[in-house]
Amino acid sequence: MTELWLIGIGTGNPAHVTLEAHRALREAALILVPRKGPDKADLADLRHAILKDCGSTAPVAEFDMPVRDESLPYLERVRRWHDAIAALWARSIAEARPNGPVALLVWGDPGLYDSTLRIAERLDPRPRLRVVPGISALQALTAAHAIPFNTVNGAVTVTTGRRLRDFGWPEGADTVVVMLDGECSFQRLDPAGLDICWGAFLGMPEQVLEAGPLAEAAPRILAARAEARARHGWIMDIYLLRRRA
Amino acid sequence: MTELWLIGIGTGNPAHVTLEAHRALREAALILVPRKGPDKADLADLRHAILKDCGSTAPVAEFDMPVRDESLPYLERVRRWHDAIAALWARSIAEARPNGPVALLVWGDPGLYDSTLRIAERLDPRPRLRVVPGISALQALTAAHAIPFNTVNGAVTVTTGRRLRDFGWPEGADTVVVMLDGECSFQRLDPAGLDICWGAFLGMPEQVLEAGPLAEAAPRILAARAEARARHGWIMDIYLLRRRA
Repeated sequence: MTELWLIGIGTGNPAHVTLEAHRALREAALILVPRKGPDKADLADLRHAILKDCGSTAPVAEFDMPVRDESLPYLERVRRWHDAIAALWARSIAEARPNGPVALLVWGDPGLYDSTLRIAERLDPRPRLRVVPGISALQALTAAHAIPFNTVNGAVTVTTGRRLRDFGWPEGADTVVVMLDGECSFQRLDPAGLDICWGAFLGMPEQVLEAGPLAEAAPRILAARAEARARHGWIMDIYLLRRRA
Repeated sequence: MTELWLIGIGTGNPAHVTLEAHRALREAALILVPRKGPDKADLADLRHAILKDCGSTAPVAEFDMPVRDESLPYLERVRRWHDAIAALWARSIAEARPNGPVALLVWGDPGLYDSTLRIAERLDPRPRLRVVPGISALQALTAAHAIPFNTVNGAVTVTTGRRLRDFGWPEGADTVVVMLDGECSFQRLDPAGLDICWGAFLGMPEQVLEAGPLAEAAPRILAARAEARARHGWIMDIYLLRRRA
């Protein structure tokens, strides 16, 4: 393999896909698609729908995602899981013997809170990488609420649920975007003076939005999130917190 | 006017445009395009190229961007400039009397360090807003360098050149992305332990990239930036700084 293409496909709306992504999928010689595992079945279906839409005729190699060992400490667990995924990619590629670039469809944007680049670095020999940017959850959130990411000349801290729990509100921040938060960590904050804009399944037909002062909106978000999660069996969500001027 | 659609078009590569953006441009009843002003001629041409690509048949109303009064303090200058742009939009729309949604093509993503949402809020009566997300400079930068935006479980501060000059390195940050920096404000930082990934004209044929330890890369960036700016007559650039582990 000479090249590995990581192709951002947006957050679940097939219309998030860019012309560049469509073109790259048509030009790839092999497309790797995870079959199941932490990637939900709806997302695997979405990948196939996008491949159909773009008119790609490349062979598709499906692989089963490995399971994370939840007994390990966080960083070690993630490290070993990435090693295992890289080994699966290498095996799939070796079996398919593609005569050109290998493509992976990446949920959201390949750079933004996604592991694909870190997994790609584990391949030996190291392929030449091409990244095709995609609409991320961050943009899908601000678009759905029709709000700006930042205030005028303001800074934004993009962080994780884990960090918000461990370190609290980032010092000096007036806007905070929280990714990868399975625990609604906004509940740990003093809600005084904070507004929240929350969204799940952003860009998909199932999209759910809530917004308002944190103290009032938090119980609505908890209820909407529990209901949506129970209905779908999984959930992906993100939120923006802003300190009122 | 019942609806105003703000449509993200990416950073200058027509292939950054999403299928959703193409569809929205075809469905709009009127498209507003700035003729000149702080928006550079190349960008006006790009907007027309995208409109041609997507097969839109909507009438296009061109308007001249007002000039900012550089003698005013920063926030006041921006406030008055936004008032003036909103008045121009209102006049163009009143003259065209569209029978459906009005669309604006927004460079990058309409939420990310862009004024369009704040200008739209000034319209009276307030239109219903729809935002179509687009590839932002932030993603175009990380894609061009094939680097992740964040470290594992790490936070990222997205900020402006002005803030970096006024407040220095954001407390506790390990990754900082700097937008809207016409003054290469990275020169004010102690470069020890910092890496930089810089890009200008991201996604365009003129794209220029530099990366490396800040102390070594800074002079290369200053030279490449001055050369590219002299050649094109304008420049748009962005960079990511990361503290080495």
